[in-house]
Amino acid sequence: MSVKRFTENPLITPADVKPSMEGYEVLCAFNPGVIEFGKEILLLIRVAERPINPNPDRSVLVPMLGEESLRPEIVEFPLDSPDIDVSDPRVVVFPDALYLTSISHLRIARSLDGIHFVIDEHPALFPQTEYERYGIEDPRITKIRDTYYVVYKGVSPTGITQCLASTRDFVIWNRHGIILPPENMDAMLFPAKINGRFAALHRPQPKMIGSPNMWLAWSDDLIHWGGHKFLLGCSTGTWEGGRIGGGAVPFRVNEGWLAIYHAATLEDHYCLGAVLLDYADPSKVLRKSIRPILAPEAHYETTGFKSNVVFTCGAIVKGEVVTIYYGAADESICAAEMTISDIMDSMS
Amino acid sequence: MSVKRFTENPLITPADVKPSMEGYEVLCAFNPGVIEFGKEILLLIRVAERPINPNPDRSVLVPMLGEESLRPEIVEFPLDSPDIDVSDPRVVVFPDALYLTSISHLRIARSLDGIHFVIDEHPALFPQTEYERYGIEDPRITKIRDTYYVVYKGVSPTGITQCLASTRDFVIWNRHGIILPPENMDAMLFPAKINGRFAALHRPQPKMIGSPNMWLAWSDDLIHWGGHKFLLGCSTGTWEGGRIGGGAVPFRVNEGWLAIYHAATLEDHYCLGAVLLDYADPSKVLRKSIRPILAPEAHYETTGFKSNVVFTCGAIVKGEVVTIYYGAADESICAAEMTISDIMDSMS
Repeated sequence: MSVKRFTENPLITPADVKPSMEGYEVLCAFNPGVIEFGKEILLLIRVAERPINPNPDRSVLVPMLGEESLRPEIVEFPLDSPDIDVSDPRVVVFPDALYLTSISHLRIARSLDGIHFVIDEHPALFPQTEYERYGIEDPRITKIRDTYYVVYKGVSPTGITQCLASTRDFVIWNRHGIILPPENMDAMLFPAKINGRFAALHRPQPKMIGSPNMWLAWSDDLIHWGGHKFLLGCSTGTWEGGRIGGGAVPFRVNEGWLAIYHAATLEDHYCLGAVLLDYADPSKVLRKSIRPILAPEAHYETTGFKSNVVFTCGAIVKGEVVTIYYGAADESICAAEMTISDIMDSMS
Repeated sequence: MSVKRFTENPLITPADVKPSMEGYEVLCAFNPGVIEFGKEILLLIRVAERPINPNPDRSVLVPMLGEESLRPEIVEFPLDSPDIDVSDPRVVVFPDALYLTSISHLRIARSLDGIHFVIDEHPALFPQTEYERYGIEDPRITKIRDTYYVVYKGVSPTGITQCLASTRDFVIWNRHGIILPPENMDAMLFPAKINGRFAALHRPQPKMIGSPNMWLAWSDDLIHWGGHKFLLGCSTGTWEGGRIGGGAVPFRVNEGWLAIYHAATLEDHYCLGAVLLDYADPSKVLRKSIRPILAPEAHYETTGFKSNVVFTCGAIVKGEVVTIYYGAADESICAAEMTISDIMDSMS
């Protein structure tokens, strides 16, 4: 199928984003939620910041909200701490705890052409609750009537949850708390009621039994969720062997709901695929990608903070053209265009 | 504090329970839900059955519902399979999959004195859905108005979920599906609405970040759940160092809600504790056990299918006396009495 990466990629890099706090640097600007807002394309960027470390040879710094203060604080771990593992640059791992080396917030960027963005100087949503002490990540924006709902990952010592916030103007925000308990990622709301009810995709991450698979859930009020159903699972040994989860907010096509999702191998090679869900009952999978519709190939995808990653939180659909905004190598923001008919033809 | 184990313990052993299927043997009869039903004490026993293996030196047998048939089938794994791990008698572990060596259903037992039980010949609830292919486990019974609600673990290749069923007579059952997605255990409903809403305890089991801790959730209809809050966590190095989760259905005392919970060390030494929750807002922990209120000491607790386990799914409260029914060593059913004031005095 034909994929047209924007020649201007990456559209946004960490260097384009001003740190939100003194003594911090922006490590990654990626995984943006995206929506049309008035005449603009609006991105809600995940901005990962880390404290500037004067002694990177001696210690690793972990930023987090203080347990009492709920304000950013920095914890320093000597590199010769017993049992410390810093082999993955994103995390500091001990046998009984895992910390993040950066703290993420959500930042707005605006564009008239979808290519050139003006990035806000300050965060739109900054971690502030006990469930957000390690940061807030990977927002998906869904417009329902006149309100924009954002489902995002709240990360804290108590776990990884899916939280809901809403806004009408991207200025005043309401937080609605945890809608899916640990450990859950990659949740997003469908843009319309289905048979009178709200639906969401989500991705539980089980410990003992089962793989990180896509599930569907239902709600009457967007706050309380039930009717959980398994939707799409990993396939051992394939590009979907390690994990699979929602990507862009599903959108309506003639044949049903089209959802761009992500999948990764056990070696964390992240690609995008597409799945067609029944319009009246999206727990029914009608067709899905056999091969990725987007795989890490460009240098900004194959090399970066975490190499070989394409990961999306949203797309803009105009007529036949789907513009997928995506995080490249967990570092920068890119976009690629493809047509709905090409996507449909690629599924089996 | 004074704990009076029943001299008749264990009250029910696997030998007392008739297998539900030909070619199977009852391995464990344990972790019963318990409720007063008319003049009787009614137990809903978790009965774990395994296929009788003619060649235990050569293979291990795994019972599960067939993917298509949703009827019990047996899968045989040679003991010399690559990467097989059968060191834990409860499970067969491969690098990318975990199977159970038994399949559990729920069986009713009835008693007028709470000591001598008559056990049904046939299951009350047998695994039957795609989310129950490995069995149904650990029921907690809550009476709300004239209906008995049972929250139980549904185990399948897609994960460990919390499911809801209801009955008015323990004869006709309604299944309401998954109320909490993977990986979740030890959920139970409070016996009354609190400020007009239903509440539940649950125990997410996270993979990457966080411990297996107790959480609280809210619902208007028992089907859709939200407002998730962290309630009670593990304490490194203590009797609560490995995991902590709900036990008996919480009951009303003068000072709030009293919940008997379970906790285990990292070495799976399972004890019971008690926690007092605010009556109007049970997400507030008022007091809790510093030491276990029940720990494995009797021979039937320290030795069995899984030694050193006491685990409860329910208690009967009459005046000042709490009778805890519990699984002993993951094998049999026992009971112990203690007074509310003793429990209250034991908390700090």
